[in-house]
Amino acid sequence: MIETIRKATPNGQGVLLGIGDDAAWVRCSSNSTLITSDLLIEGVHFDLQWASFFTLGYKSLAVNLSDVAAMGGRPSYMVVSLGIPAGFSTEHIQEFYRGLQSLASETGVGLVGGDTSASKRFFISVCLLGHARYGAIPRSGGKTDDDLYVTGTLGDSALGLELLKTGRGKEKRRHRAYLISRHNCPTARLKAGEILAKERLAKAMIDVSDGLLQDLGHICKASGIGAVVWQEQVPLSPACRSIAAQKGFLYALTGGEDYELLFSSRPRDRRRLERIQGQLGVPVTRIGKCQPSREGIKVIGPNGKPTDIAAKGYDHFKNRL
Amino acid sequence: MIETIRKATPNGQGVLLGIGDDAAWVRCSSNSTLITSDLLIEGVHFDLQWASFFTLGYKSLAVNLSDVAAMGGRPSYMVVSLGIPAGFSTEHIQEFYRGLQSLASETGVGLVGGDTSASKRFFISVCLLGHARYGAIPRSGGKTDDDLYVTGTLGDSALGLELLKTGRGKEKRRHRAYLISRHNCPTARLKAGEILAKERLAKAMIDVSDGLLQDLGHICKASGIGAVVWQEQVPLSPACRSIAAQKGFLYALTGGEDYELLFSSRPRDRRRLERIQGQLGVPVTRIGKCQPSREGIKVIGPNGKPTDIAAKGYDHFKNRL
Repeated sequence: MIETIRKATPNGQGVLLGIGDDAAWVRCSSNSTLITSDLLIEGVHFDLQWASFFTLGYKSLAVNLSDVAAMGGRPSYMVVSLGIPAGFSTEHIQEFYRGLQSLASETGVGLVGGDTSASKRFFISVCLLGHARYGAIPRSGGKTDDDLYVTGTLGDSALGLELLKTGRGKEKRRHRAYLISRHNCPTARLKAGEILAKERLAKAMIDVSDGLLQDLGHICKASGIGAVVWQEQVPLSPACRSIAAQKGFLYALTGGEDYELLFSSRPRDRRRLERIQGQLGVPVTRIGKCQPSREGIKVIGPNGKPTDIAAKGYDHFKNRL
Repeated sequence: MIETIRKATPNGQGVLLGIGDDAAWVRCSSNSTLITSDLLIEGVHFDLQWASFFTLGYKSLAVNLSDVAAMGGRPSYMVVSLGIPAGFSTEHIQEFYRGLQSLASETGVGLVGGDTSASKRFFISVCLLGHARYGAIPRSGGKTDDDLYVTGTLGDSALGLELLKTGRGKEKRRHRAYLISRHNCPTARLKAGEILAKERLAKAMIDVSDGLLQDLGHICKASGIGAVVWQEQVPLSPACRSIAAQKGFLYALTGGEDYELLFSSRPRDRRRLERIQGQLGVPVTRIGKCQPSREGIKVIGPNGKPTDIAAKGYDHFKNRL
């Protein structure tokens, strides 16, 4: 097994000692380190019926990259541990590492270690390191009257998963393919995150993994604020608009796994944000504003009145196996 | 769940941003980082019949600390991810974190993040960081004619596990308790590892997790050497001698999970090693020497002749569930 992993892993820049010793030994390129980790478990986070080993490898890194992006950081090294069921072949695991390595190469991340073990169910545990050259952006930096922005479009991933589950319908093939790829191979907004940190434009930031309203809730709780979101401003992709029609905003507000960035910014920085938009690699949309804590989280509908959408999202412990 | 973890975790030294954000953010105290990770899976690495949640927490950190010790490093931060079955209570998880935190406090390690999820079987994935102020000691530094040393005593853990499985016998209570605690709450040889690195006394080093012969095999393979071990010199505890009698050396040579350090050292450094022995916090015993690769690994028995003990150990993939 170690050979499978080693082959997938040329020793990268700054790696003093890579896979195969008791620990990896790497150079630090700054005087602080970001550390994040995520679990992906078969039957909880993915289903092998509609996830390939390649996409699982890709996604298990992407979700961690997204956490580093949400801090305004740049990723560096990862360790990946796998629990592998008896029926899996070496080819399965090679495909997994091929997916992982393809995104790792693209983003300059070195795979420096990990562990593998027999397991009843397949699971993946990734720990990713990074550095925050411009300081890390916490969830707690939101202030009343700050603007709220989101990168890209929301709801695509949840809708993509639904299309995977329900099978082929009448929707346009390219829309379907787009939404599914948004679910399987999400793009961490690394460039946007780092530039927002460098330019001190984001004050509180989080990645949208549990759904917009739930993740906004995390920012509000950590910052001690409330928030208002204008439903009509929430950005939807053409594919989502076409397939989900009127329901699109529901996917956008409560669907998880978009891995876009949600951040607060001071109103006086609006122009500066507009000026650097072209550098971020993804469009940014103002979707609401921060309010005093007592206001809670409100979604304003097309008629200008608050809707009754509660802060919903995906809670793994509500969906225990 | 996050609250359970947060309560267990006072923000430590150097932690700029601890549990609860997208990623932790910590200060680096040197210009390089050690990274190690280990999986512990119910039914593969432990059985809840004879492991308490406290000892599981303790041990899941100890095995990672041992990897950092084997590099000659000092541990700093960890992230801990748990897959938690539906039947577990908050008390179970609190007990786990109590065990983890007790060893973390003792060794100056900060718990800065992790992930939890529902899972069919309980599993623990730990990623531990550290730094190697004096440079990391690889497995590959062994040279023909170097001496081989081991810290502490070997075989206790494997025998302790056997006592747990077979239940109470006629053996002395204190011996029994000692061996079981060696299995449940192993001591990572952090002080010894760091001093050996500082004094440049260890050239190749590994921790004995799979069994002496198997781990010696890792050093030999990485260093391109062979080795001879004098069976009579392998250190056994009084408890192991008393209970296992003539079989003690078998536990010592092939039993896993001792978490002692095995290292090579130059013959000309013998006196220097003797002089600093008292600082290591654990006795060190010379048990053999490095040989040319063609000699393979030999165990010399009490009669001065090679025994037929092959390099054995515990391979999880040989014992697939």
